[in-house]
Amino acid sequence: MTLTLFELAGEGERRFSPYCWRIRMALAHKGLEADVVPVRFTEKHKIAFSGQERVPVLVDEDTVIHDSWAIANYLEEAYPDRPSLFGDPAGRRLCRFLNLWADQTLHPKVSPLILLDIFRHIDSEDRDYFRSSRETRLGKRLEDVMGDRDQRLGELRTTLMPVRSLLAEQPFVAGDSPAYADYIVFGAFQWARCCSDIGLLEADDPVCDWRGRVLALFDGLASQAPGYPC
Amino acid sequence: MTLTLFELAGEGERRFSPYCWRIRMALAHKGLEADVVPVRFTEKHKIAFSGQERVPVLVDEDTVIHDSWAIANYLEEAYPDRPSLFGDPAGRRLCRFLNLWADQTLHPKVSPLILLDIFRHIDSEDRDYFRSSRETRLGKRLEDVMGDRDQRLGELRTTLMPVRSLLAEQPFVAGDSPAYADYIVFGAFQWARCCSDIGLLEADDPVCDWRGRVLALFDGLASQAPGYPC
Repeated sequence: MTLTLFELAGEGERRFSPYCWRIRMALAHKGLEADVVPVRFTEKHKIAFSGQERVPVLVDEDTVIHDSWAIANYLEEAYPDRPSLFGDPAGRRLCRFLNLWADQTLHPKVSPLILLDIFRHIDSEDRDYFRSSRETRLGKRLEDVMGDRDQRLGELRTTLMPVRSLLAEQPFVAGDSPAYADYIVFGAFQWARCCSDIGLLEADDPVCDWRGRVLALFDGLASQAPGYPC
Repeated sequence: MTLTLFELAGEGERRFSPYCWRIRMALAHKGLEADVVPVRFTEKHKIAFSGQERVPVLVDEDTVIHDSWAIANYLEEAYPDRPSLFGDPAGRRLCRFLNLWADQTLHPKVSPLILLDIFRHIDSEDRDYFRSSRETRLGKRLEDVMGDRDQRLGELRTTLMPVRSLLAEQPFVAGDSPAYADYIVFGAFQWARCCSDIGLLEADDPVCDWRGRVLALFDGLASQAPGYPC
């Protein structure tokens, strides 16, 4: 097979999209290699063939899939003999809840903490577009989005409570070994790590140990991406 | 088998504990009947044999189990030929995330909205204990816990976003048919319904339709419990 992953790119080799990281990890989990095509914020023409404007986009021979959840499901079905991303059908259905929780509850707690750092790490040609699109959407300057940093961090750590409790019971979100559920949550941390030196977690947080375990997977795939120590 | 469920009881036939409702629904799902023993807030001596002070407690012949998650897992293992609560092992592990999310994220958004209504529906002999224990823990009078009702409702509805999105894709939290994942989330709504006339959801919320479907399960088991229309 020939797989191509179209992935959001910042300045140089910075790759911080949490959704693209889910798929990078999912491909590694399946033991699949893909050619990676970087797509900057102002290069949406590169994925126009997919009929929409968001990465990740995966191309597998003649098949074009977009949306990280759809791609993960495609990989699970197209490569059933490789290690499973979901374990079994009920696992996949409840993984969908985790996916929606990450998108709608977790990410909005991370985003304001790192938005200005993302801006600092995108390609210079993307900066005007990024600033104007985000400032229009949010109704404030990028510099004013974070607000009270400590309060934001407190809210994020409270939001992570169920993940923290789960990881006190088992080494990975998915259980004894990592699977797509882990890559979903990990995407949020890798998003931050690749563009910001902010410490999202306290050092004694069990989520911190788990993040280290996921960073080490697949010969340190995620830890080798340009970013900050965490 | 002879099953006995020790369950939190309010005034008369009021039964509002979200954790006990999870088990009531789980028993019905498994097609099991249990003798139910009401335990009021000041009747903890009734469950002293379990070695702890919280309901639900399930007794199955010589086996005593407490904690709703432990009870659900016990039922799944002790009655494997009955309809499954979790579907499969990966489903059970991710259901644990949903369980922790409900306990630690969802319930704290519901509780302040109904705490005073709970107080109004508990046995008169429990009221002094309930008021003093809650007011000590919360550092304010029961009458002051709700604060800004509309803001609280807004936060609850935001917290429900991933459930709402999931239910826009499938009829039940667990997928095409209901399972323990549904009973976990439903417990929070039944908690409110059994003691409060507050409208937690807007009428056009997909979560509202789902709640109706769960209320109708098992010949309307949950809808027949004394409570308020919703």
